[in-house]
Amino acid sequence: MTSGAAGYQVSEPTHIHIRAGKIVAVSSDLPAIGHVYDCQNKLVTPGFIDCHTHLVYAGNRANEFEMRLNGVPYQEIAKQGGGILSTVKATRAASEEQLVELALPRLDGLIRTGVTSVEVKSGYGLTLNDEIKMLRAAKALEDHRQIRVETTLLAAHALPPEYAGKADDYIDMVCQEIIPLVAEEKLASSVDVFCESIGFDLAQTERVFIAAQQYGLKVKGHTEQLSNLGGTALTAQYSGLSADHIEYLDEQGVVAMRDSGTVATLLPGAFYFLKETQLPPIELLRKHQVPMAIATDLNPGTSPFADLTMMMNMGCTLFGLTPEETLRGVTCNAAQALGFAESRGQIQTGFDADFAIWDIEHPADFSYQQGVSRLSARIINGELNHV
Amino acid sequence: MTSGAAGYQVSEPTHIHIRAGKIVAVSSDLPAIGHVYDCQNKLVTPGFIDCHTHLVYAGNRANEFEMRLNGVPYQEIAKQGGGILSTVKATRAASEEQLVELALPRLDGLIRTGVTSVEVKSGYGLTLNDEIKMLRAAKALEDHRQIRVETTLLAAHALPPEYAGKADDYIDMVCQEIIPLVAEEKLASSVDVFCESIGFDLAQTERVFIAAQQYGLKVKGHTEQLSNLGGTALTAQYSGLSADHIEYLDEQGVVAMRDSGTVATLLPGAFYFLKETQLPPIELLRKHQVPMAIATDLNPGTSPFADLTMMMNMGCTLFGLTPEETLRGVTCNAAQALGFAESRGQIQTGFDADFAIWDIEHPADFSYQQGVSRLSARIINGELNHV
Ligand SMILES: [Zn+2]
Ligand SMILES: [Zn+2]
Repeated sequence: MTSGAAGYQVSEPTHIHIRAGKIVAVSSDLPAIGHVYDCQNKLVTPGFIDCHTHLVYAGNRANEFEMRLNGVPYQEIAKQGGGILSTVKATRAASEEQLVELALPRLDGLIRTGVTSVEVKSGYGLTLNDEIKMLRAAKALEDHRQIRVETTLLAAHALPPEYAGKADDYIDMVCQEIIPLVAEEKLASSVDVFCESIGFDLAQTERVFIAAQQYGLKVKGHTEQLSNLGGTALTAQYSGLSADHIEYLDEQGVVAMRDSGTVATLLPGAFYFLKETQLPPIELLRKHQVPMAIATDLNPGTSPFADLTMMMNMGCTLFGLTPEETLRGVTCNAAQALGFAESRGQIQTGFDADFAIWDIEHPADFSYQQGVSRLSARIINGELNHV
Repeated sequence: MTSGAAGYQVSEPTHIHIRAGKIVAVSSDLPAIGHVYDCQNKLVTPGFIDCHTHLVYAGNRANEFEMRLNGVPYQEIAKQGGGILSTVKATRAASEEQLVELALPRLDGLIRTGVTSVEVKSGYGLTLNDEIKMLRAAKALEDHRQIRVETTLLAAHALPPEYAGKADDYIDMVCQEIIPLVAEEKLASSVDVFCESIGFDLAQTERVFIAAQQYGLKVKGHTEQLSNLGGTALTAQYSGLSADHIEYLDEQGVVAMRDSGTVATLLPGAFYFLKETQLPPIELLRKHQVPMAIATDLNPGTSPFADLTMMMNMGCTLFGLTPEETLRGVTCNAAQALGFAESRGQIQTGFDADFAIWDIEHPADFSYQQGVSRLSARIINGELNHV
């Protein structure tokens, strides 16, 4: 999974030398000293990276799912103050400890599909304290499971009810209060915005990006999911790590991503669950060699799937990606989407010693058969973690 | 999940009295004698029933999956002797023991989603000995896991290469050699036919059904999946247990099913995986009150999904079924599809003591969030089986 290379690059049995959590050599000879772990001819991949999740939340929206099957559209549910705002209400009412407890079964689902690094966004608190509570809960997952958590501030996810009709005031508060504190306390490494007709407009998105940059945080965007507002090009203009969803993106936006080195994070679970029909511009992304990542978008409203390999299957089946593209999408390209292009997602000297070890016949299987347990073990920071 | 009733029918904490593997009472009072198992306020459902699988096979078709993503259509792969025939070749080459070993990880996937009864079809052997080997391997799964297996003879699944151009001769062999022996040795309780332009025609299907009836076996069909040939009406005419797929079924066929008490087994996994666009006639099935089952169709070519609750999600998301309909689809209606309408799939006095016990907030959750482990235990034939 070397970035930019072609093919699965599967090596014959080889030795990966690890020291202090890092890969220090990949070679045919055994190390002179140290412990040897025999992977018994299983397939070893970079640990999978789920680079876009909303894993931390409270509440249950199965009822809304039943409503939607009775014909109420997503945008209508959002406008009615149901949908995301029901999750906001429940998340505000939950303690940090409760949020951790509720997130763990979902995290375990991701871990069973080989995930060693997971990005977690805030965005269901929408107040200073509740956003911070979500970010702390996300980080606390590392105390409960062998996992690396990257946190993203998504205060600009939805307009909280107390700011109804005053979106600019809310953005002021995000830029002047939440971003500075999150940066100071190092609670997140990047800032995300839901740039959409039912989210925030282009000008509001830009204000958030400017504030993020001022405080040394990277930016990324939920852009061009339901319409073409230009959020992706804006994200690229601010050197965004990734632009996510991007079903409605045009060639100009794709070229902007290429020029800024922004990763295209594709979220087929949401596409599937919302029964969208507008496909992301896969051919244009290939043509301009924009790296594509695949993530779960795990969230209670539009992608309730704690299963990264099922998303790889959907990437192939619904978006026409090849199995190889989806494997890059959860390894090297997902690492780049989190700003770890030089340290995760590849089995290379100098990279983090994060691996998944699989009972699998061929790498194409990851995105093919689903529901069968294939993970044998994970190694994170050089430490073995049996399933 | 009483057949024909409406709503989830969730009871307040209650006692289910079990004797000799059967439910002997459902009541508010504790039994005077015997063991008590406390389900601790978890949700108890009838054990889930996957009423249509091709779980037993050898070989791996991940490569074909990659081919298909390069644009080769399913019917073309089938015509080229790839596709199903590659599975036939590998299955013929495998021993009964190997088939069991290969099937167990898939079966474990189904078990994790609450399955206590599974139907398994032959159809990758296509010779007397290889079809029998598959059926014996399917039955042998009961020796390795706590599971009930129902076997179906599907010798008329595809034309074996040695009968190329001689489909009628192959059907002669099926009717005169395979069906009589399978009936005599009680290796299957029903006979299935793939009635399709790339399978067998209506006249051939009817010959198989007549032979099955002569030998006291029930019939069912893979019908109206890719075109409308009339296979469903024919299945109904022979009092078929179920007609499966039925995307192209018209109202006349739906009425025939209603009149014969034939269950509509919907297979959203194959619909999804083949990117079909013709939806099964859900409104007509509702209008004429034809019971609908949901199954995995677990097979290596068109539905590689060992996950029954994901199929429930697809039933909702892709077919517009309600969560309640999908739950009936894997309990009472799936039982009827296997001829167990009076003994499985409901929590009723006189029924088999097969249950699944769940950590779940609401029954709509089964078809909503996926990837999260929710099964706490299963009870089969009155015996507890922890996950
Ligand atoms: Zn998202
Ligand atoms: Zn089938």
